[in-house]
Amino acid sequence: MTESPVLIQGQWRKSKSSGTFQAENPATMQPLDGTYPISGWEDCDEALDAAAEAAHALQQMPSERIAIFLETYANQIEASRDKLVELAHAETALPKTPRLADVELPRTTTQLRLAAAAARDNSWVQATIDSQANIRSMYGPLGPVCVFGPNNFPFAFGSISGGDFAAALGAGNPVIAKANSSHPGTTRLFAEAAQRAAEETDMPPGTVQLIYRTPHDVGAQLVSDPRVGATGYTGSRSAGLKLKTAADAAGKPIYLELSSVNPVILLPGVLRERLEDLASEFTSSCLMGAGQFCTNPGMIILIQSAESEAFIKSVSEKFASAPIGTLLSKSVSISLETNLKILQDAGAQCLTGNASGGGAGYSHANALLSISGKEFLGNPATMQTEAFGNSSLFVIAENIREACDILTCLEGNLTGCIYSAANGEDDPEYDRLAPLLRSKVGRLLNDKMPTGVAVSSAMNHGGPFPATGHAGFTAVGIPAAMNRFAALQCYDNIRPHRLPDLLADKNPTGQMWRLIDGTWSTADVSIS
Amino acid sequence: MTESPVLIQGQWRKSKSSGTFQAENPATMQPLDGTYPISGWEDCDEALDAAAEAAHALQQMPSERIAIFLETYANQIEASRDKLVELAHAETALPKTPRLADVELPRTTTQLRLAAAAARDNSWVQATIDSQANIRSMYGPLGPVCVFGPNNFPFAFGSISGGDFAAALGAGNPVIAKANSSHPGTTRLFAEAAQRAAEETDMPPGTVQLIYRTPHDVGAQLVSDPRVGATGYTGSRSAGLKLKTAADAAGKPIYLELSSVNPVILLPGVLRERLEDLASEFTSSCLMGAGQFCTNPGMIILIQSAESEAFIKSVSEKFASAPIGTLLSKSVSISLETNLKILQDAGAQCLTGNASGGGAGYSHANALLSISGKEFLGNPATMQTEAFGNSSLFVIAENIREACDILTCLEGNLTGCIYSAANGEDDPEYDRLAPLLRSKVGRLLNDKMPTGVAVSSAMNHGGPFPATGHAGFTAVGIPAAMNRFAALQCYDNIRPHRLPDLLADKNPTGQMWRLIDGTWSTADVSIS
Repeated sequence: MTESPVLIQGQWRKSKSSGTFQAENPATMQPLDGTYPISGWEDCDEALDAAAEAAHALQQMPSERIAIFLETYANQIEASRDKLVELAHAETALPKTPRLADVELPRTTTQLRLAAAAARDNSWVQATIDSQANIRSMYGPLGPVCVFGPNNFPFAFGSISGGDFAAALGAGNPVIAKANSSHPGTTRLFAEAAQRAAEETDMPPGTVQLIYRTPHDVGAQLVSDPRVGATGYTGSRSAGLKLKTAADAAGKPIYLELSSVNPVILLPGVLRERLEDLASEFTSSCLMGAGQFCTNPGMIILIQSAESEAFIKSVSEKFASAPIGTLLSKSVSISLETNLKILQDAGAQCLTGNASGGGAGYSHANALLSISGKEFLGNPATMQTEAFGNSSLFVIAENIREACDILTCLEGNLTGCIYSAANGEDDPEYDRLAPLLRSKVGRLLNDKMPTGVAVSSAMNHGGPFPATGHAGFTAVGIPAAMNRFAALQCYDNIRPHRLPDLLADKNPTGQMWRLIDGTWSTADVSIS
Repeated sequence: MTESPVLIQGQWRKSKSSGTFQAENPATMQPLDGTYPISGWEDCDEALDAAAEAAHALQQMPSERIAIFLETYANQIEASRDKLVELAHAETALPKTPRLADVELPRTTTQLRLAAAAARDNSWVQATIDSQANIRSMYGPLGPVCVFGPNNFPFAFGSISGGDFAAALGAGNPVIAKANSSHPGTTRLFAEAAQRAAEETDMPPGTVQLIYRTPHDVGAQLVSDPRVGATGYTGSRSAGLKLKTAADAAGKPIYLELSSVNPVILLPGVLRERLEDLASEFTSSCLMGAGQFCTNPGMIILIQSAESEAFIKSVSEKFASAPIGTLLSKSVSISLETNLKILQDAGAQCLTGNASGGGAGYSHANALLSISGKEFLGNPATMQTEAFGNSSLFVIAENIREACDILTCLEGNLTGCIYSAANGEDDPEYDRLAPLLRSKVGRLLNDKMPTGVAVSSAMNHGGPFPATGHAGFTAVGIPAAMNRFAALQCYDNIRPHRLPDLLADKNPTGQMWRLIDGTWSTADVSIS
């Protein structure tokens, strides 16, 4: 059986591996052709050397060249669309259309082109000039970035194609990608396209590199290596926290997206106004992609009433009759079952969907659990266990005060949402709940399910720990996501001819935004 | 002997302490009057409760009120100037004038007023509006901030008066200050002034709180408590790394300023041009305040030549004949001696000043060490030991290539400086060295000693680990320093009347900078 090569220093070569693994088609539960190497330290060490060299070369390069690389890569991805969609479908069971071909692939190329535009524009560096003191500063590249992509977005969050990749490259850093083990072939196709683009645009070898998997200790060594600038990780909490411990001890930034139950509160008035619409909206948001979104609404907080009972009844019927999707992998399926059991053992009642299987391949019945606010408050940590997949937990508060107590107990989440009546009758309750929810989430929504994460400059796909590792940063949204992979660089009394163009008196493009003596401006520094 | 009270929840009260300590006058080596409590967990727990309540209240408050508090506090400090200078002089032996009264105190009140202005202006929140998608985001307060101040700036970096305090408050967070044990009385005077200002401006109790010291395990528990937003720490590497381990494990941001040798490179041409001037400039920079600056030039890299020998000879003479300052404390004195010994045991030669004492109280002869580039490269980690105080290490490279190798081995530093000839003859060497140095430091300087840290919007008082905990942040410079204590808060589809004023269509002041659809602007969002 053919073993896929790793991509190191611009060369596809056989891994110095400690073993191999196979991908599996989750819809058929059958292994897919080919094997992938489990890289030992030697592969990582060589990749780090090449990345360090590439980082140095990229730092000397005008950002225009990085922009052209990213755009060429986006074109390459579009040229490989059919192969990518085909293989990703086989490896993840995500629908080819609209999901992979018409939603995720365009999102991926859009992100790359936005990062290219931001790199070209250079405003993201937040050039700050104190003309009196002749002190000037800007963000600059941090060094090689390791990206560990998640299982649920093989394109748009992929290790060598997704948001972290685009942000790291856009900020001028080479990337060492660690494929997600559930779609190694898709990641390889992206790496091939990326490497073709790198060669076509004459980027240094080591700009983009790929390994597929490492033993845990090797991964920990990788993210804490002195040659690394930072790491982006999206995945399970347990694996992420192990990497965090290693990176933290070495003083290496690591940006984690770990887990989130994304609480949604439906206030009594809005249920009276449009109960059936909301039941449909929630059901389709929660079951889309078999619920395998970071921003899936995994916890619905209701105030006990006849309407909340009717809502639960309606949703339960919809869940029971909706088609059952295929889960991304065996491990997702095991983990969903385990976590649903943890919730039930802690007192949650299963309203519907207490059975594995029911769909093609790895699957689980669409599951709804329920618990009273009082019981939730008796064991809030366990009751916030994320059951990643087509499931959600109703938490029924006795009254608004108990709902406030529930919000106070929440861990950090990516999103939090409050639905309220259009006629304003819920506004007093909204005003009590919103400040509590605000402090627990990165993105606060009104009247809208959190599942969609728009690629917007104002997006925050982040939030307080343990949703992410640092509440000040977002993983989606160009240019803000780029600043995660940047160092603040100050130039004090530097002779004018030695300043980076971006900090020179003359605005390098006439369009770049710079903060000059406290005023954002696209003008030159005025010589007074 | 009177035990000083702690300030918790707006009340000066007796600590629930596990012991006490005394301050000492380092110039006389005699204990000062009064004792200070070592707080156990109970004090911290109560302070955290009060801080959490204060954080909630501050979040609901217009930033104008925080600005007024900070300005009132600055006025209070000026009213207490004589007492502050007197006691700080007794506790630290720093000169009353110009240092404490004419430099550090004005710097302190300037920082507080700049933070007030930034809070009032609100541009620091980087309000970002996507008007099409109706997604809006900004930085907002993170929650209670613990500040552990250093020994060397009792005013300008003091726990309850300095840069971290101003930044945390300016961003809307209450502060729990942990005094530095070497100047607890000075810190208490500041806390008294802060509390008077808090009362005068009707701030919530718990806005400013003070403890003096904790056992190590209690400090670790404090920075990792769920009620904490973040911690700012400036001090020794060993104590800082212990706090970092605790905070990291809890997912709590901690901003550390640990240690830095601040390499300065003097190229051959500039030595030919003005050797004696440079010898004086370096000597006065290195011995100012007995060398007890975070940005003290602790490592001078020279290229072997007749000029470099002459420079070393001249500096050695100046060091031998310069007055010997008093060190900040017994522990600084012990640590200086220990670290000079570590350097010598590893092969550095002492050129002058190999003796403790010689000045008033705790002191050490002005010390110069020297090592060859080759020996440095044989043991680069040990040779970068910071000997905090009136000392510096010459590293003599055989040639420019060896100087490059030395830079490649450097740890992260706050600053790095290159002096080069005015006539341009050093420029080829500069061009080889500067990119290597750039990647190792937060602030790159030309032709200027690094000791001064201007309070400038473009300043970066930060740098790669282990100089600080994260190369993306600065501890000096308003408003950038404030963003360390902020969370990114996104508002997605929020009904207009519920948006924070700062994100409403109408610019709240007509002067606040906001990034609207990619353009920095002080205008309203235009309704299209």
